Parts: sequence; structure tokens; C-alpha cells
Amino acid sequence: MPITIRDIGEIELINRLKRFMRSDQINDDVAEIKALNKNLLVNTDLLVEEIHFSEKISNAQDIGWKSIAVNASDLICSGSENITSFTVGLVLPPNTHWEWVENLYIGMHKAMKVFGGEIIGGDCTAGDIKMIAITAFGEMNQPRLHRGNALPGDYIVSTGFHGLSRLGLALLTSEKLPSEVKLSPSLISRAIKAHKRPQAAIEALRALNASRPDSTMLRAAGTDSSDGLLQSVKGICESSNCQAVLLKDALPKDPEWPKDLNWNKWLLNGGEDYQMILSLPQNWAKALLKKLKSARIIGFIKKGRPVVLWDNSEEIKVEKLSLFQHF
Amino acid sequence: MPITIRDIGEIELINRLKRFMRSDQINDDVAEIKALNKNLLVNTDLLVEEIHFSEKISNAQDIGWKSIAVNASDLICSGSENITSFTVGLVLPPNTHWEWVENLYIGMHKAMKVFGGEIIGGDCTAGDIKMIAITAFGEMNQPRLHRGNALPGDYIVSTGFHGLSRLGLALLTSEKLPSEVKLSPSLISRAIKAHKRPQAAIEALRALNASRPDSTMLRAAGTDSSDGLLQSVKGICESSNCQAVLLKDALPKDPEWPKDLNWNKWLLNGGEDYQMILSLPQNWAKALLKKLKSARIIGFIKKGRPVVLWDNSEEIKVEKLSLFQHF
Repeated sequence: MPITIRDIGEIELINRLKRFMRSDQINDDVAEIKALNKNLLVNTDLLVEEIHFSEKISNAQDIGWKSIAVNASDLICSGSENITSFTVGLVLPPNTHWEWVENLYIGMHKAMKVFGGEIIGGDCTAGDIKMIAITAFGEMNQPRLHRGNALPGDYIVSTGFHGLSRLGLALLTSEKLPSEVKLSPSLISRAIKAHKRPQAAIEALRALNASRPDSTMLRAAGTDSSDGLLQSVKGICESSNCQAVLLKDALPKDPEWPKDLNWNKWLLNGGEDYQMILSLPQNWAKALLKKLKSARIIGFIKKGRPVVLWDNSEEIKVEKLSLFQHF
Repeated sequence: MPITIRDIGEIELINRLKRFMRSDQINDDVAEIKALNKNLLVNTDLLVEEIHFSEKISNAQDIGWKSIAVNASDLICSGSENITSFTVGLVLPPNTHWEWVENLYIGMHKAMKVFGGEIIGGDCTAGDIKMIAITAFGEMNQPRLHRGNALPGDYIVSTGFHGLSRLGLALLTSEKLPSEVKLSPSLISRAIKAHKRPQAAIEALRALNASRPDSTMLRAAGTDSSDGLLQSVKGICESSNCQAVLLKDALPKDPEWPKDLNWNKWLLNGGEDYQMILSLPQNWAKALLKKLKSARIIGFIKKGRPVVLWDNSEEIKVEKLSLFQHF
């Protein structure tokens, strides 16, 4: 019989979790963050079982990885190159296997090795469903990327392909595809990986910073595309009070993504892509494309009410796919 | 029909919650904390419905108050006099009334007026049960109170009475009392208030700092008694590797607490008291008693294996009352 956390008991559980934490934190409930001469960025994200993750399609290491990656993504896409720490709050049913908990933390550690940071504290308690509440901390660097920094004339840049995570989810749950097409094994593999082990855009941020045309240039709008490509562009329009035009022929598609236009809905609204969506001065956008192979100019910003248009002036409506209709 | 958060929808819900947040945070997912020349203390606590709170006994404002107070308590009892900010993660069933959510935040705001801080960010998502994940931030001040700072010869000080919250819970749930006694109306009222609207020990901390015999004296052990008086004293013994002796005649009892010794179990193990339990050099302890009327010397620290004894050398075992056996 596998050992459950009820078998272990609360005190021993907390003791076992300490080995995943920064070693000087172990004697107190509270964690310390050293004084900084830089501002700190903070992000809180909740992952709830059967809403944000499901054991039917992801194992504990996948879920641990994802819980760190999605939090890191928000900080990175706000401009933080140095993720410093995480607190982890866990709600777990008493019959949860210890092995599951251990693998969750192993997955978190693997992600922290890539994106930075360490666990400095947290809380663990019983509940009927699994829930992971993570607060992530990073240094604030220049440029600080805001949704509200776009200006007419900017190019809109996506740092990577979209729709893969949504396709991965569909493949893992045997959901009907937008149309019947034959998918290449390598696309299938990339899609499943994008869903189970998303990558936060740390390399894209480094390329963005390395491609600044001159060091005084600091204005850049940015956000991650966790809620979908279209929602991210719309968010920039609303916060910056301007209009976006997307180029139909320049959608950030995986080279093996189906040509059928029915598949655009997953690309535009699928979500959980964790790419960086940027609005940049044109020369910066062009310089970034030279540094970052996966980056694409997908449109431009102009004056107007905050909506997103195709280049034929047709408005593109954000489609709420059932997966993300939480309420 | 009351309006539910499903009626409102996710985007409008997040818009409505923004009025409870610091005004410069509203355009981005991430929050900023300004650069500090002081270290930051961070604490994460989870409150799960039917484990940490129940609508049968507390209304939304009570629950909001408590969620802030219990987080502030950990920071204050680590020495932070200046609570600066909170992030709030909420899991809510879609049929939750908007009015409930609004009152939750009103309760939080009332507590922040007393204990300090403001909401700088968070997350909100759907789930089958209500859950509140709070991360609290405070400046680290000197002395930093650690569980591990006690030394033989110290006096153990409780900054207030214990057992009231446990009694309040029993009264609110019509639970059988430890023995049949007549309780005074004022004790009943204090007990219910202690359970519904706990006070974090900010006044006690100020008194502690104001009573330092000299400004170079910085060693003090401390923790809050959220897990019960006895567990707190035991925690200090274990982290400091020493022994505690409690004086049977000096238990920190409300003047109207029943004399019957059966009631000691709630006083020792009831939990959710949110008083400060300190281990202090003797002259500091005596000075504190002069500044803080509710403070009591309840025992002393000596060399020995980390257990808690009565003054007749009998060992006092921590009793896990069913309420806190989460696993």
C-alpha cells in the first residue's frame, strides 16, 4: 500500500517538505527576503485540481513544473530577469500519496533550475481537493514591461508559436479537433510538451534586453499569453487605449500547424501559451527578430478604440473557449 | 435573487475587486514592492472552508478579518511592527453571492486598518469549495523574534489569555463544554469575539520593544500561539533545544475562566489564540509586565531535552484536539 499523508501526519509531512526549502528558513513560520536596492515584483497564482490541472493528463512532476512555470511567466513577462523565490501553499486531501507530494516538489525544483528561484516558505493543509497557491518573487529590472506602454506605430511581436498547448490538451483528452487532419508525430510531441511542461519566456526576455537599439530606450509594452494570444493583445489595447491590427498571414504558427483556418481559433484563443506578447518601437522589434529565431512581427498598433482588427479591418472577437470559462 | 459571481462573470468580478486594491496595481497581473533598506518578512497561510472557517458560525466580514489577522499575527510575532502588504488568492464556487465576496474584502480592510497593510495583488478562480490563500509582507525589525532564541534562565511570557477562542468555537457550535459550569455573559462575549475577530498582538509587540532594558538587548524568542499555548512553548523548546517549566498557578486565564481543572485542556491546547509567547531575559520580562497589563510570566526555561514540564516535574503532553487534526 502506498503511504498517504494521513499515515505520515502533519508534523512529519512538514518536516519532509523542509528538504525542498531554503535551508535557513526551517525554524520559523515566516520567511525572510534580504533587503534589495531593486524593487520586487510579486505574483500570486492559484492552480485548482480539475480546473487548472488534472491527474488524468498530467503527473505530479508535470503539475509541479507547471505551477512554477506559470508564476515565473508573469514575472518574466513583466521584465524580471532574476526570479528569486517562491512560497508554496498546498491544500491536499488526506489520502494523497506521499510519493505524489514528493514528485510535485521534484517537478517544482526542475522548473526552478531553469527559471530561477527557490522555495522560501509556505503552508500545507487538508481539503477535499488539491490546490496549489504560489506566490513568486523576482527583481524588477528595466525595462519594466507593462500592458499600458504601447503607442501607435509600434509593432506587435510574439516571441513564439501559439495554440500548441490547446492542441496538447485536446490530444491528451481525446477531444475532437477543429477539423480532421493528419498531425505529424513531431507536432503532436511539441503540443503535448507545451501543455504538460510549458516554458516561461526567459530566453525571449534576455533577447529583448540584448536587442535594445540604445540603452536609453526603455518603453516596451508586454504581457504573457497565458489567457490566449488574442486576449493578450486586447489587454494591451485596453490598458494602452489604442487599437491593434493583426496580419492574417503572419500568425505565430508552428511550421507544422494545420493550414485549415478552423484551427485559428485555438491559435488565437487556446490559451496557456506563456509566450511574450510585446508592443515595441519598430527598430527594437526588428532588432529582436534578429536575436530571437522564434519571434514574429504579427501586427501593429494604431490610434482608435481598444479592439483588435484583422488587416482587412474586420474586428476579431475574443472567443471564450469552455476550458477557461471558470465562472 | 442575490447576484452570484457566475452572473457577474470573471472579468467584471476582477474589475469589482480592484477597488479593494492599491490603485497603482490595477493594470497588470503582477504587483510591485518598492526597494527597501530593511529585510522583508513573508508569510503564507491558507484558510479552507469547513476546516479553518465555516459560514455556519462566521459571516463573510468575520472571515475576511480573520484571514488578515492570522497572517499579520505570524509577522508581528516574528517582530515586524510594520505590516506593508498582502496578496489575496481566492477560490470561490461560481454560485457564491457577490455580496459575500464584497463583505469578505470589507472585513479584510477593517483588519488592515488595525494591523496595517494594503492589498497589492492576487488571483481569483473557481472551485468547489471556498479557499483563501494570503501572503503577507512586513518590514523586518529588530529584534527579530525566532523560536530558536531561548536560553536557560529566561522567563516565558504570554502576552494574553488563552482558551477563549476555543470556548467561543464551542459556544458557536453548541459543543459540550469540558464541565457543566455557569459562564458569565461577559466571558461568553469575549470568547465569541476571540474566535470570530481575533486580534494580532501588535500592541504586545510595541510594548515588548518599548520595554527593552537597554537598546543593545536584541535576543528574544517568540512565536504566536495559533497552534495552542502548549504547542507554542514546545516549539520554542525544540528550536532552542531546551526545556520549559510552566507554573500551574500562573496559567494565562481570563479572570472569569472556570476554576475547574478540566478546562485547562482548552487553555493549553485550544489553539487560535494569536497571543505572543516569548522567552525573554528576566529583566526584560519584568519590564514588559509593567508596560503590558495582559502579560503574564507563565514559566521559565532550563537546560534539558525539549519537553514542557509542570513545576512538579510532571511532563505536559500536547493534546491534539480534533479540530486541528487536519490529516
